[in-house]
Amino acid sequence: MKSCKIAVIGATGAVGQVFLRIAEERNFPISDIRLCASERSVGKKLEFNSEEIEVELCTQKLLEEVDFTFISASSDVSKKIAPLAAACGSIAIDDSSVFRMDDTVPLVVPEVNPTDLISHKGIVSIPNCSTTPLVMILKPLMEASKIKRVIVDTYQSVTGTGSAALQELKDQSQDILSGNQIKVQEYPHQIAFNVLPHIEPFQGNGYTQEEMKMVYETRKILHNDNLMVSATCVRVPVPVSHSESIHIEFETAVTPDEAKKILLNKPGIKIVDDPYSNLYPMPIDASGSDDVLVGRIRKDVSHPNGIAIWISCDNLRKGAALNAIQIAETMMKQNIVKSTTWR
Amino acid sequence: MKSCKIAVIGATGAVGQVFLRIAEERNFPISDIRLCASERSVGKKLEFNSEEIEVELCTQKLLEEVDFTFISASSDVSKKIAPLAAACGSIAIDDSSVFRMDDTVPLVVPEVNPTDLISHKGIVSIPNCSTTPLVMILKPLMEASKIKRVIVDTYQSVTGTGSAALQELKDQSQDILSGNQIKVQEYPHQIAFNVLPHIEPFQGNGYTQEEMKMVYETRKILHNDNLMVSATCVRVPVPVSHSESIHIEFETAVTPDEAKKILLNKPGIKIVDDPYSNLYPMPIDASGSDDVLVGRIRKDVSHPNGIAIWISCDNLRKGAALNAIQIAETMMKQNIVKSTTWR
Repeated sequence: MKSCKIAVIGATGAVGQVFLRIAEERNFPISDIRLCASERSVGKKLEFNSEEIEVELCTQKLLEEVDFTFISASSDVSKKIAPLAAACGSIAIDDSSVFRMDDTVPLVVPEVNPTDLISHKGIVSIPNCSTTPLVMILKPLMEASKIKRVIVDTYQSVTGTGSAALQELKDQSQDILSGNQIKVQEYPHQIAFNVLPHIEPFQGNGYTQEEMKMVYETRKILHNDNLMVSATCVRVPVPVSHSESIHIEFETAVTPDEAKKILLNKPGIKIVDDPYSNLYPMPIDASGSDDVLVGRIRKDVSHPNGIAIWISCDNLRKGAALNAIQIAETMMKQNIVKSTTWR
Repeated sequence: MKSCKIAVIGATGAVGQVFLRIAEERNFPISDIRLCASERSVGKKLEFNSEEIEVELCTQKLLEEVDFTFISASSDVSKKIAPLAAACGSIAIDDSSVFRMDDTVPLVVPEVNPTDLISHKGIVSIPNCSTTPLVMILKPLMEASKIKRVIVDTYQSVTGTGSAALQELKDQSQDILSGNQIKVQEYPHQIAFNVLPHIEPFQGNGYTQEEMKMVYETRKILHNDNLMVSATCVRVPVPVSHSESIHIEFETAVTPDEAKKILLNKPGIKIVDDPYSNLYPMPIDASGSDDVLVGRIRKDVSHPNGIAIWISCDNLRKGAALNAIQIAETMMKQNIVKSTTWR
């Protein structure tokens, strides 16, 4: 198998750290790895495959030397680095929302729309961490009947925001348990022992950007501009893994058994659906798993053609780092690369 | 104003304790109060209006001496005490699910269906703590257009289970923060830093009892057997107050402004809907409030006649104790009483 040279931009962040662990676990074939972060982390050493690697600043020269540039930092960083990487002949695999709706940028979940990678122009976007598990289950179910409408309410973990938010959840939880004053910095309000119906800024239509991402990204990935989607995105005091309550309306009736049968043994999906034995997806079980856990598959009793489903998915893994690595793996396997040589 | 004699069954529990505080706050006109609990609490003293009152066992003699018997204990207690109270000439106001779907028992939220109290036969049920806030907003909105379908996903607090569950949330949170082993007793799984799509036992159709309560109780209270309702009930690591993401389909289009105008100034409802200033309902703000907080009122972008709403409501107050007291207040004001005399 070929190997490749990669750069990880945002290597010290929550997703960056998980990226390194997954790359080790999967033996992702790396001949050279460069770890980049902001100025204040430069010189810090991170471990990868038992080696210590020094964090450096991302430069044009560095981008010229790598095949893939994985970016999971701020939107501003993506805006600057992704086009530069592409111009340098590196393929940018970008975790930000900046390029996702760009017609020239494939937005890809390898299990769902791998062939969209063929037309890449040097930048590939990975979907929002709440969109990825949703399309993972919608795509196979399109076999059963046309999907007309999806209503989804989310229960999203704080690592979707980042490492600082995870620390804030811990600090606030401890302060509240100890009867101390809490500090609120990462969110507009207390997140410990609370829920916030507010992820990303609000738009003119009363939805948040996060919610509208779920609408537009789902349509783009499934190649269905007519799919009706409504989302309510809610932050819950959970460290890792997003859960979603999903209501699907099909054009014709689909039974829960049919839906379950279709989802069974699909790559990246694990059915956890024996509620009578207290088995259903939960964030504590999804965390650290590569699979989207799918359960509580039942008829939507409010609609003749409806199915209700509950899922949990590790937002740092399949929701981010794992999906990025799988995109690179797919591109290497299928020789879908912009650069003509693997260095 | 008339005064009445009351018994509080389950006085030492989470709802019982809140009941006493609300009765004090509202100057609920009590000429005598009897506090009952299980054997192990007998002799314990609870404060009410600066007096110490001894907890006693509930006896037939006691029930004969009170006008209202407020019951918030186990279903088994309700099964035994409510019919006995009614037989003794006391009006049982029951927080359990035992009698809610009984055709001879009114299921009442005073703001929604007060006239259902007229036909009582000695027992009145209060709805499930997740149903009450839902019907509080559905009822007024029926003015705008016929409601055809409601999809609701909940974010329910642990006090919906009781005091022991609240303690378990605190203990597990502290143990996890300290790196200690946790104890799991009140729920099938860890609740701290997790979410459980499981409230009450599962039924044959894949829904939980809690979820089907929301279907059947909503239909009964709104007198609409054809209303389509689907619920997913989820426990979140929040001490007090349930939140709900609600999707309403009307027969004809209703604008968010119309919906907001209708809900404005309705008793028991407080609009908290200025998302651009980070104002929306949250459990930490609903806790201790008598009102259902209503916000994020917006068009459901997935349906031409849809509205999406987010609410938070104190499950111990309007979801339980407050609603019970308001039922008694309504019956006293309207002279809807079974017994002919107020003792």
